Amino acid sequence: MSEPNNLIFAQSGGPSPVINSSLRGVIEAARDLPQIGTVYGARHGIEGVLKEELIDLSAQSPEEVSLLRFTPAAGSIGTCRYKLKEHQDEDFERCIEIFKAHNIGYFLYNGGNDSMDTANKIALLAQERGLDLVGVGVPKTIDNDVGDSEFKLIDHTPGYGSTAKYWAHLVQCADEENRGSCPADPVLVLQAMGRKIGFIPAAARLADPDREIPLQIYMAENPCSLEQLGDQVNAQLKQAGRCIVVVSEGFDVGDLGEEKDSFGHTSFSASQTTVAQVVVNYLNKKGLAVKGKARANVPGTDQRHAIAYASTVDLDEAYASGMKAALLAAGGESGYMSTILRNPGDIYSVRYDKVPLPEVANSERTFPSEWISENGTDVTDEFVRYARPLIGDEMVTLPLIDGRLRMTRFEPIFADKKLPAYVPQADRS
Amino acid sequence: MSEPNNLIFAQSGGPSPVINSSLRGVIEAARDLPQIGTVYGARHGIEGVLKEELIDLSAQSPEEVSLLRFTPAAGSIGTCRYKLKEHQDEDFERCIEIFKAHNIGYFLYNGGNDSMDTANKIALLAQERGLDLVGVGVPKTIDNDVGDSEFKLIDHTPGYGSTAKYWAHLVQCADEENRGSCPADPVLVLQAMGRKIGFIPAAARLADPDREIPLQIYMAENPCSLEQLGDQVNAQLKQAGRCIVVVSEGFDVGDLGEEKDSFGHTSFSASQTTVAQVVVNYLNKKGLAVKGKARANVPGTDQRHAIAYASTVDLDEAYASGMKAALLAAGGESGYMSTILRNPGDIYSVRYDKVPLPEVANSERTFPSEWISENGTDVTDEFVRYARPLIGDEMVTLPLIDGRLRMTRFEPIFADKKLPAYVPQADRS
Repeated sequence: MSEPNNLIFAQSGGPSPVINSSLRGVIEAARDLPQIGTVYGARHGIEGVLKEELIDLSAQSPEEVSLLRFTPAAGSIGTCRYKLKEHQDEDFERCIEIFKAHNIGYFLYNGGNDSMDTANKIALLAQERGLDLVGVGVPKTIDNDVGDSEFKLIDHTPGYGSTAKYWAHLVQCADEENRGSCPADPVLVLQAMGRKIGFIPAAARLADPDREIPLQIYMAENPCSLEQLGDQVNAQLKQAGRCIVVVSEGFDVGDLGEEKDSFGHTSFSASQTTVAQVVVNYLNKKGLAVKGKARANVPGTDQRHAIAYASTVDLDEAYASGMKAALLAAGGESGYMSTILRNPGDIYSVRYDKVPLPEVANSERTFPSEWISENGTDVTDEFVRYARPLIGDEMVTLPLIDGRLRMTRFEPIFADKKLPAYVPQADRS
Repeated sequence: MSEPNNLIFAQSGGPSPVINSSLRGVIEAARDLPQIGTVYGARHGIEGVLKEELIDLSAQSPEEVSLLRFTPAAGSIGTCRYKLKEHQDEDFERCIEIFKAHNIGYFLYNGGNDSMDTANKIALLAQERGLDLVGVGVPKTIDNDVGDSEFKLIDHTPGYGSTAKYWAHLVQCADEENRGSCPADPVLVLQAMGRKIGFIPAAARLADPDREIPLQIYMAENPCSLEQLGDQVNAQLKQAGRCIVVVSEGFDVGDLGEEKDSFGHTSFSASQTTVAQVVVNYLNKKGLAVKGKARANVPGTDQRHAIAYASTVDLDEAYASGMKAALLAAGGESGYMSTILRNPGDIYSVRYDKVPLPEVANSERTFPSEWISENGTDVTDEFVRYARPLIGDEMVTLPLIDGRLRMTRFEPIFADKKLPAYVPQADRS
C-alpha cells in the first residue's frame, strides 16, 4: 500500500470560541483514518499555504490537541482575511505546487461562504492539474450567515451558539447592572457584532424569553432614524425608568466613516467612532426622559473569544463537524461542506451531513424577516425556539492552572520547506 | 427582653460581581444574631432611606438569599450615586426620622471611601440626637482604591479580585484572538475601568506573569503622549508583529469632553468618545509599523457584572466581610468598617477585622509607584504576587435553568411607610 496522502487544514475569517474544536475533530478523526497521513495546519490560513508554513499537527501531543476544546479563537494555527480572488492565478498555481510538494491529498477549509467558494475553486483546479485532491469545507461563523435562510443547507454554524450564549448571559447580567444603577445610569447601550445579519443582536432576547427586561434590539435589517430610536428609548424610560439597548455594529446611523476590509466588507471595528457611541451621544444630547446619562459597552472581539461563555452544545457540534469533514475527506467526497442539520421533533438533536460547496458558496443567509417582531425592536418566539437549544444547558468547565486558563500550546514543528519563497499576490506592492 | 432593633443595609456607587455576597453575609449572619431584628435593604442606597423604600430581606426565602452568590451587580436592592453632602441637613435629619420610625438600630453602608464618610456622619448625628444607632461600613469597590497605599487599613476590597480575574482571562483570550488574527488586526486595544487608580488595568499582567504576550499597559498614573504611545506600539509591532494595549479609561489623551458625576468624579462612560477610540484613531492615522488596523474593545460595565469571571476567593471574602459587619453591628461597634487583612506567610490567607471609619474616609489609596515597571507600560512582579491570590484557582460554578443564569429574585415585600413622602434635597429643582 502506498503512503497515504497528507491533509492541510486552514482557517479563514474571524474566529469563534469553538473554532479550535473543529480543528481538534479533524486531528483526532484523522488518527483513525488510514487514508489520511500527516495533518498540517496552515499558519494563518491560505497565507500559510502560499508561504509554505505548515504546522505539523500530527506531531503534537494528544493532551495539547484535546485542550483545543478550551482554547478560543485562532491563536493555535492562525486565521487570515487573505482572499484568493479570480485573477490571482499565481496564488492558485502556488497552492497546487505546495500540494504536490507535500503530498497533500486533502484540503479542508474552515470558514464562511467566501471560504467555501475558495475551497471549491482550489479543489477543481487541482483536479484539472491532475492532482488527486479532495477539497472539503468546514463551517464556521459566529454570525450564522452561512447557507440559506430556509436552514436547509445548514441549520446553524459552529460558533453561533457560543456567541448567542454570550449575549444571553451578558444581557442578563447587564440587566442586574441597569436595574441596580438606574437612577444614575438609566440607559445601557450594548453593541453587537454581526455586520448586516442580525442573528447575534437577536440572541439578546435569549436573556429574557418572557420579556421582563426593558430591552430594545436594533438590528441592521430593520433600520430606523436616530430620532425614532431616541423616541422609543424615551418611551421605555417613561414606562420602566430604564432601558437596555442592544444595537448591531451594522445598524445605520448615518456617516460613520466606514472602512472596508480585504473582502470588501465594512470594517466596523476600525471606524472612527462606534455605532454605540453615536447612539449614546445622540441620546445624551437629545436628553433622556428621566434623569441620568446613557452609557455604552462595546465588547468587540470578546464576543468571539470569551471561552467562559462557550456553549457546550456548540463545542460538541464544532468538534463533530470537524470529524465529519475528516470522514468526508477520507471517503473521497470532494466538493462538499460538512453540515449540521436539525432533526424534526420537540427534543433538540442534529445529524451531520454534507452539502455541495457551490450551493453554500452561492447562497446567502439573511435573518428571516418574519422573525423580526412588529414593533421593530424585538424578535419573535419563533426565533427563540430556533436559537434556545444552541446555547446549551450548562457552563463549560474550564481547566485553570495557577488561576489562569490552560490553553493549547502547540510545539513549533513545521513541515520542511521544499519550494522557493513566495510572496502572495496581494502582499506585493 | 425588648424587641431587637432592626437593620438597614444600603449600597452606594458602582456595583461588583460580588456585592450581593456581602449582602448575603449580612442577612445570613443576622438570622443568628438575637440583637438584630428585621434586615431591610434600602432601595437604591441612601435614596431608599430618604424615600422610605425599605425591602424586607428577612422575609425573603433562604433560597433566594443564597442565590445572591451567583447574582452580580446591584439589581437585587439597588445602588445609588446620591451623595449626602455637608449642607444637606434636611437629608440627614430625614435619615434620623426614618431610623426612629422603623426602630432602626443598625445602619450598614456598603461602598468606597465616600460611603464610609457618610456612614460615619450618619452614625454620629444619630447618636447626637439620642438614637442608639450603630453605623458600620462594608467595603466594596472593583477599583481597589479604598483605604491606604500601605494596605494596613484593608488589603484589598471585595470586588477587585473578580474584576482582576476578568482582566486576567480577558487578556488571555484576547491574546489568542490577536495571535490568530494578527496579519489583519495586529493591534487590539482594551479599555479598562478604574478612573485614576490603576489596579484594574494592572491586573492584565495576571494573564501573563512570564511576559510572553506582547502586552502594553497604560495606566492613568503614568501618563505619556499619544505620540510616545504610538512609538511604543510600533516598536512592539516591529518585534512581535502584534500588540495588545490595555489602557485605563482615565488615561490622559487630551481633550475628551469629560463629564462629571454627582460625586465630582469624571464620568468617563458618558464621554463623547472613549479613550480606547482615541488611541485606535490615533494609531490608524499615524500608521502601524505592520499592515493592518488597530481595533478596540470597550467592555465597560461588563467588568463589574460578569458573574462568570467572579473569583471564588472574592465571593467568599465578600460574604465574610458582610458577616463580619453584621457581627460588629450586633456587638455595638459603631464607627467601624469591616476589613480584610492579609496574614503574613507564603500561603495566602486573610483575617477579618475592623478599622475606624474616619481613618478609611480620610485615607486615599493610590497604586504604589514602585509597582509600575521602569519602562512605564508594565507592572512589577511585586504587584503580581499581591494580586495573584485574589483571582482564586477555579471558575465559579453557576446554576443555569433552561440555559439562563438563575439569579436572585426578591419578592417586593416592603416595610410599611410611616412618614410623609419626602423628596431628597438633590432631587429638588
